[in-house]
Amino acid sequence: MTSRQRCLSMVTLNPRLIELEYAVRGPLPIRSLEIQKELKEGAKKPFTEVIRANVGDCHAMGQVPLTFLRQVLALVTYPAFLESPEFPDDAKERARAILNSCQGGSVGSYTDSSGLEIVREQIAKYIEARDGVPADWQNVIVSGGASDAIRKVLRLFMCDVDGKKSGVMVPIPQYPLYSASLTEFGLSQINYYLDESKNWSLEITELKRAVDEAKKVCKPRAIVVINPGNPTGQVLSRQNIEEIIKFAYEENLYILADEVYQDNVYAEGCKFYSFKKVLTELGEPYNTVELASFMSCSKGYMGECGFRAGYAEVINMCPEVKAMYLKGNSAMLCSSVIGQACLYTITNPPQKGEPSYESFQKEKSAVLESLKLRAKMAADTFNSMEAITCNATQGAMYAFPQLHLPPKAIEAAKKQGKEPDVFYAFELLENTGICVVPGSGFGQETGTHHFRTTILLQTEKFKTMLEKFAEFHTKFIKTYS
Amino acid sequence: MTSRQRCLSMVTLNPRLIELEYAVRGPLPIRSLEIQKELKEGAKKPFTEVIRANVGDCHAMGQVPLTFLRQVLALVTYPAFLESPEFPDDAKERARAILNSCQGGSVGSYTDSSGLEIVREQIAKYIEARDGVPADWQNVIVSGGASDAIRKVLRLFMCDVDGKKSGVMVPIPQYPLYSASLTEFGLSQINYYLDESKNWSLEITELKRAVDEAKKVCKPRAIVVINPGNPTGQVLSRQNIEEIIKFAYEENLYILADEVYQDNVYAEGCKFYSFKKVLTELGEPYNTVELASFMSCSKGYMGECGFRAGYAEVINMCPEVKAMYLKGNSAMLCSSVIGQACLYTITNPPQKGEPSYESFQKEKSAVLESLKLRAKMAADTFNSMEAITCNATQGAMYAFPQLHLPPKAIEAAKKQGKEPDVFYAFELLENTGICVVPGSGFGQETGTHHFRTTILLQTEKFKTMLEKFAEFHTKFIKTYS
Repeated sequence: MTSRQRCLSMVTLNPRLIELEYAVRGPLPIRSLEIQKELKEGAKKPFTEVIRANVGDCHAMGQVPLTFLRQVLALVTYPAFLESPEFPDDAKERARAILNSCQGGSVGSYTDSSGLEIVREQIAKYIEARDGVPADWQNVIVSGGASDAIRKVLRLFMCDVDGKKSGVMVPIPQYPLYSASLTEFGLSQINYYLDESKNWSLEITELKRAVDEAKKVCKPRAIVVINPGNPTGQVLSRQNIEEIIKFAYEENLYILADEVYQDNVYAEGCKFYSFKKVLTELGEPYNTVELASFMSCSKGYMGECGFRAGYAEVINMCPEVKAMYLKGNSAMLCSSVIGQACLYTITNPPQKGEPSYESFQKEKSAVLESLKLRAKMAADTFNSMEAITCNATQGAMYAFPQLHLPPKAIEAAKKQGKEPDVFYAFELLENTGICVVPGSGFGQETGTHHFRTTILLQTEKFKTMLEKFAEFHTKFIKTYS
Repeated sequence: MTSRQRCLSMVTLNPRLIELEYAVRGPLPIRSLEIQKELKEGAKKPFTEVIRANVGDCHAMGQVPLTFLRQVLALVTYPAFLESPEFPDDAKERARAILNSCQGGSVGSYTDSSGLEIVREQIAKYIEARDGVPADWQNVIVSGGASDAIRKVLRLFMCDVDGKKSGVMVPIPQYPLYSASLTEFGLSQINYYLDESKNWSLEITELKRAVDEAKKVCKPRAIVVINPGNPTGQVLSRQNIEEIIKFAYEENLYILADEVYQDNVYAEGCKFYSFKKVLTELGEPYNTVELASFMSCSKGYMGECGFRAGYAEVINMCPEVKAMYLKGNSAMLCSSVIGQACLYTITNPPQKGEPSYESFQKEKSAVLESLKLRAKMAADTFNSMEAITCNATQGAMYAFPQLHLPPKAIEAAKKQGKEPDVFYAFELLENTGICVVPGSGFGQETGTHHFRTTILLQTEKFKTMLEKFAEFHTKFIKTYS
């Protein structure tokens, strides 16, 4: 293959894939895997294990799966156990309901592209109970994780309007699925900045600034809000959500509400309000705003990332558009049926009086209490260090501290051709085995430097990780002061 | 929402989604679901159940899951059962291997975007054993079903070359995932016609005709070959594959080999040869042709559609391009880990001497034997009818008979504004409950009319279905003669 050009070369490859970036799985995590291998092969390092604090991957960090959930999933996978006395009746009841709604009684058959009706109905009931406002199961579209659901909504906007590219507003810092998908889909990214000095608050004046500026170059059509925030961990107040909905109404924007961390709210006085609830309760004319809200089995207290299950609830969508949206989804047949069973079970947990109620509640609270503890621990510890400030993790699973790097460190980074935060994160990785994601992967105000760490490591280990981090950080700051 | 335009309307929606068609889940299957509901609600029909012969959905049609496979999947889902005497040791061994390679020992954690290393290695071993030529696990990219894998390769070609749109050659008739994805990705579809009069053979002269014509309007860059054929059921000979590879070499085309039916070969004298094997054994210079081969857990003898598991083996890809391909995949995190476990188990079945060997072999042969029987039964029955001709189903899971419709039937269809084959299929559905896919959903030579039916219904029921079909068909032809 020397004399002739390959059919697929860097010159003839989809240029958007070249442009696209996804830092959560970027060069740092790739290097961390290499280091893991080097350690296995006996390499000598100043540490004995890699700590992958870069991904919101709960079970990988030692969180134990929920017994009831896994019982239901094992039963639908291997229905012979429906006769076994080892499984509680409530798990069997859930499993039977799922199997009865599968074609041929097997989770090995395809489902409707939007998911099993029983799963969508159950999710709608869950949403109703959560919000106290009606939910229509036909607005619930099951998918292979929230990422999949988000992309399927984003791709609807691939259309020039008034001779301009469509634009989507995203918070900065943002979860890089958004920037990566917008790049891939050829949509304009409109950045609005969260205010770090006010605990990453979302200011309407900033939304106005961003949208007005964007109008010069594109047609703003949608706004992404991540609540609780990823990577920033803030929880929006009800009043703030009302303002955002009114803003979206005035600007005729579609709202994409990324609400996958809705169960992860820790701070006193904070409470999760869904956009759907607030929008509905605002009444006319704001209850006509078009909205897609996203949820997942990967986060919350279940943390079942590997099952790839999520959904979108889609409100006020034009019926003809909805038909096209569903048609587009159908070419991919359906999402994992075990994932759908996971959604069904999570939205239909054991009730008071059922045999698994107590143990389920106990396991659930243990996970959430432990996350709450670590959320506070993270911010407190980072704030106790020199040259670091960190907002409170009110919700979600991350801390996103700011590094106040000395000029010498910034110079050293430049010499290596790296962003200062990337330089810092690589040093951290090579010296401690701790893998975090540099702030530049999420976006940050120019001249500021951050990193995102998960708070998922189990508590004793998390303490040790923070100690190792502090030790490294002190040395690093000293070296470059 | 009366006075103002919705943000997302048919005018501002991604036009490619409007254009896109996917007949396997089109208007006929949608109507079939309605009928199913009507029957449930007590509606009187000339039949009592809907037979969904439109989708290659094995378990939905009564195929029983493989015990060993489901045991492994239940064990990885609920590892407490690793201690249970009810599971055989070989299933436990597979389950332990999978769990050991999962982060945190849980299938609830994310994996590498390309899949668990142990799964990719096992698949590579399977490919080596199948082909007798080496396979590198790093060329195996696990995905959420073959459809997902195919789309991830197709999107690489979204790039104008020499000022022309990139074009992809697809067989006519084709599986509509291809046409749907090409439409969505804005790629040109270059049709090459299979020769129905020669049992759907793939003629190189036709490939040449198609590519030459296409060059006037686009840049041909890739060719899709489906072997065994879907919907057409032919199995390519080794010599034919050699010719196709040589053609691809001469035209510098990337080959996408859809080989998901590799286990489904029934006809005497037919044998499955992978493109990878033939390409490798052809030697220089043909072994440099760029190739992606696709496989799935949904077909074969396992039929586990609901688990959404497949892979691509990618050969001769430029390393820089491969890095971009993997980066693009990484934004979706990973495919279902249970799906990956399914792939691992299927490519690592019980060996002679292991406790599950006999029963596994028995279950596997029973499925394949029964498919073989029905493959012959379908073609024989259709050929015994007036105004139908049907090529042999050498492989895959479908029959694709040609309807020789009387002119009056064609007129009646026109009056309803329907394609004649769509008209026929709707009549069939409304009168018998049998849901098939009209040939126009796959593409067919102008003036010819076909339909695709699966051969998946269990044998006794399949017989009854064919009888009901014959009865309807006779009446239909009589009515319009």
